[in-house]
Formats: sequence, structure tokens, C-alpha cells
Amino acid sequence: MTDFLFKRMTLIGIGLLGSSISLAARQKGLVEHIAVHTRSDATLARAEELGLGDSYHKDVAESVKDADFVVVCTPVGVCGTVAKAIAPHLKEGAIITDVGSVKMSIIRQMQPHLPAHVHFVPGHPIAGTEESGPDAGFAELFINRWCILTPPEGTDEGAIEKVKTFWSTVGSNVELMDAHHHDNVLAITSHLPHLIAYNIVGTASDLEMVTNSEVIKYSAGGFRDFTRIAASDPTMWRDVFLHNKEAALEMLGRFTEDLTALQRAIRWGDGDALFDLFSRTRSIRRSIIDAGQEIAASDFGRHLKEGETHAPTLSSDDHEYTGS
Amino acid sequence: MTDFLFKRMTLIGIGLLGSSISLAARQKGLVEHIAVHTRSDATLARAEELGLGDSYHKDVAESVKDADFVVVCTPVGVCGTVAKAIAPHLKEGAIITDVGSVKMSIIRQMQPHLPAHVHFVPGHPIAGTEESGPDAGFAELFINRWCILTPPEGTDEGAIEKVKTFWSTVGSNVELMDAHHHDNVLAITSHLPHLIAYNIVGTASDLEMVTNSEVIKYSAGGFRDFTRIAASDPTMWRDVFLHNKEAALEMLGRFTEDLTALQRAIRWGDGDALFDLFSRTRSIRRSIIDAGQEIAASDFGRHLKEGETHAPTLSSDDHEYTGS
Repeated sequence: MTDFLFKRMTLIGIGLLGSSISLAARQKGLVEHIAVHTRSDATLARAEELGLGDSYHKDVAESVKDADFVVVCTPVGVCGTVAKAIAPHLKEGAIITDVGSVKMSIIRQMQPHLPAHVHFVPGHPIAGTEESGPDAGFAELFINRWCILTPPEGTDEGAIEKVKTFWSTVGSNVELMDAHHHDNVLAITSHLPHLIAYNIVGTASDLEMVTNSEVIKYSAGGFRDFTRIAASDPTMWRDVFLHNKEAALEMLGRFTEDLTALQRAIRWGDGDALFDLFSRTRSIRRSIIDAGQEIAASDFGRHLKEGETHAPTLSSDDHEYTGS
Repeated sequence: MTDFLFKRMTLIGIGLLGSSISLAARQKGLVEHIAVHTRSDATLARAEELGLGDSYHKDVAESVKDADFVVVCTPVGVCGTVAKAIAPHLKEGAIITDVGSVKMSIIRQMQPHLPAHVHFVPGHPIAGTEESGPDAGFAELFINRWCILTPPEGTDEGAIEKVKTFWSTVGSNVELMDAHHHDNVLAITSHLPHLIAYNIVGTASDLEMVTNSEVIKYSAGGFRDFTRIAASDPTMWRDVFLHNKEAALEMLGRFTEDLTALQRAIRWGDGDALFDLFSRTRSIRRSIIDAGQEIAASDFGRHLKEGETHAPTLSSDDHEYTGS
């Protein structure tokens, strides 16, 4: 029993993140008991079918009883409601964390409700896929991904250490960051990309001179890349934009300014301006691959042949298909 | 000898497309002799090292001598110059095609130079990766991709048939289309996605409140998806925008309008507008997968495990990682 990092972990919400946390924590022997709560009867039943917990709770108050680790895995917009509902039932010394993609708003929503005898360590694993729901989870989701913790000043160091240990054991690199800075970083690396992807897929759907079936048919020219993140969970992403409004609008404003300059370059045939931008953006992908945050195979490895596997250690100079 | 579709194919330009055509045509036994021309000494030497041709020509006029099939694989901006240079040396009945991502401009640039005794069948294989150069080619590039031909009215039917046979033999589905319509379809499915990807990577590079190393580190939140096409060949893409200006500006205008509406929804907290868009974009990816233009594995298959391969026939209901 002393081998477990936590005796009782409660997962509030059991979608892609909640189910992946369950599977990863189980695989690594991090927790003795996993209590699962979700509002939806169907999802709770499905979680039980999948064996994602040791106990299943329709009542959120009951789910956190005796928990020493509570992970809120709901959309950002309901975190305040969740905090209010669980607060009176949290045991002394319990550690509360979350997985939300915005942090300032979550702290504002949750902290006022939480009693002084618990430790609140807001967190954000930068990991996910375009799938959602309890069936979408897998234990390897967090491997080699970053997990950012944004504990408010004065948070208990021991609690922070335990949350760090949890994430590093499931495979992540953990970083502490100021919540405000987190929200700016994620606005450019995640929120704006999602907004743009959703937007172009919407624009493409609404054309009268090009049919939807043509868009689908000829999507290999680039469009299909955007449809992946535009297939992400709508509720989660609505809440992200409602709750990281300022940073999202700031990044969007910069993006639009830059796009307007590009539009002008196209209109006036300024090939040098286009070439300059198109050249300087090339190296950043290589850096992302070198940082272990992307696979090295070209075209996301879509052309991998039967029997080949993604080789994350592939050198940048390898051209694996040459002459084949 | 009568088994070959063409006796002598000349590739003008030997980058990703030219080298892939060479490898695919060879593999399928489509041509007896492959003549390779490129302006760059280094690239021509590399093509020879890779064995991409049977003869190598610094002189473009010499390269097309006796060719019955000429494929122009250069950036769009030099097609006119190429047509002018090869025109006097083309043999009677030769078929000229190209692989350019815009078609109206290519017809305008090339057709006036070409003699009446040759057949011009403009073409565009919707296939590529973010890599470029002769090392990047692979024979399978065209399999299950679309190739659009835009022959001007009155083009010899026999010539069109031979070009269709060429592309279908290397694995593509061939479609005939009006050049103007092609340019609209590609503006939304390929040109605008590239422009937006280049733009967001540029915007992210220029921030003062978030460092480039943070953008790279936390790119798994969505940003990294955009860096793939933003790593594409700068010369090729500069020329695409200079030569499909009207359609690109039209699609860009619509995209910006839609994005401005989204910006307003974020500013005013209109969650319903956000949710509506985010919901209706989800199904289009499934359609693209069903149309065989995308792999079914989530996250572009980045999480495939050792020994697993992309299974393009994976059912949409499979959740391959569940419970693992």
C-alpha cells in the first residue's frame, strides 16, 4: 500500500483525458482506487464497461469522499460549479488538480470555493487527440508530452511535488509556469490553431462555387491537415475561447494583421515578401521534430509502408523513400 | 517495345514531383527512356547519382529531342520560359503536360509558345509532401490520389487518353476539369491552407511575450499540425500565389470575413455561435477518411505503437487504443 502515490484518485469527467489518466495511472501502479464521476448516465455506464474505475458515482459529492487526489477533467466552463459542489466533501490534505487548457479562469472559478485544508495545484497536460469520450483514452497519451502546472503563490510544496511525480510517472515532462503566461503560450500554440482550423473548414463548407464533395475529394492538397483539429470536441473548445478571451483575441489580432500584409503582397505581386515568409517558416518544423514533439517521417508518416513503423529517432537527413 | 506507353519521357525539373514520376513510371514500365533536365548542376548530378534518368541534360532543348512525352515539373513561374525554350525542338505529335498547382496561368504562359503539331494536356496530381528536391521522391506518391487534367477545348482525345493512362497506371484517379474551376477548387483545398499555415507560423515566430522555444516545446497542442505544410518549398508556393491571385484573394476574403465573425463571437462571449461552428466542422474529417484521402488513425497515427501500421481500411467505429 505504501507503494501507491495516492490511495484514492477521483476523476471528475471521464472523456479522452479522464480515461487516459485512468489507464496510465493504473498501468504505472500510481493509485490504489480510482473513483469515477460523470454527469451522463450513458458515459458513466460506458466507463464501467471499459473498467476505467474501481467505483462509479453519479453523485459528485460522494465521488470525492476520502479521495486524496481529485482530478477535474471536465470542460473549462463547469470547473467553478464542480469546485463548489465538491468543496464541502473534500478531506483534509486532499490534492485537487485539473487538466484544463486555460489556467487563469480555472483558478478564478475554483479557488474561491476550495477550503483552506486542501491543496489546489492547477495543471495542464499538453496532450490530446481529435477524439473524445471514454473510448478515446489510451495509457500512452502523456508520454513525452509536457505537463504545465500553475500553482498559485504559497501552494504547499509537498503537494506540488506529488502532482509532479504523478505526471512524470505517466511519461510527461513537468514544468511550472505562471498561469497568465500559460494562457498566452497556449493561446498561440493551441487555441489560435484550433480557431483557424475550425474557421477554414467552415469557410470551405460554405462556398457556392466549389462543392463540399470537391473539398473532400481534393483535400490531400493541404486542407485535410486542418480537419484533424477541427474535429476536436466542440464543448471543450467553446469553453476554451470563452475562458481565454483576452489572450485569444490578442493572438488573433496579430494573426489577422500578418495575414492582411500577406494579402497585400499577393494583390500587388510582391513575390519577395511571400518568399521571405515562406522561407523562414521552414526551419521551425525541424526544431519541433528535434524537440521530440513531432514525428520525423514526412507527411505525418501517411506514406509509411506495410511493416514500417514511426521511427522518432529518424535523422533529419534521412530520406527514407528515396529510390525505393 | 510496344509495351511502353511512351518511348521517351522528358522530365523538366527533378524535384519531389519529377523524381516521384521517374520512380513510378519506371516501376510500372511505362516508359522506355527517361531524359532528365534541370537548370542546377548540383541537382542534375544528384539525379544521376540516384539513377532517376537514362540521360541527363543541362540543355533543355536537347532534353526534349525525340521525346514523345514531356512533363514540366518546375515551379509555376517558369513554365512560360520553359515552353518557349523547348517549343522549336518538340517532335511532331509529342504530348506535353505539367504538374503545376495552378492551371489558368500555366495555359496562358505555355500555350502561345507551343507549336500546332504537339498536344498540350495540362495536369495536376494532387499529391506531395512537405519535402522537396530529387531525394524526396518515392514511387508510391500518386497512389490513391487524384490527378486533374484541364485540356483546353479541342485537345486531341487520343493524347488526353494517353495522359490519363499514364496517371492511372501510377495509381491515381484521373478527373477532367475546366481550368478556371480547378483554380477555385485548389484555392480553397490547397492554396489557402498553405497561406494560413505559413502565416500562423510567422505570427508565432514574431511574438515578444512567448519565446520561439516555448512555441516549439508546447506545439503538441495543435500548432505542430500547421508546421508541416509551412515547411513546403518556398519557391513553388510563392509562384502559386503570384499565379492564382484572383482565386486566392477571393478565398482569403471569405476566410477573413468568417474569422472576423468568430472574433466577434469570442469578444461578446457568444458561446452558441462558437459551438455551432465547432460542431458542424467535425463530420468533414470523417468524410475525407471515408473518401480514402486521409488515414483513419487518430492524431495522424502519431501514437501508433511499435509493430503497428497504418490501416487505411480501419473502420470509423474502431477505437484502437481503448483499454490498452
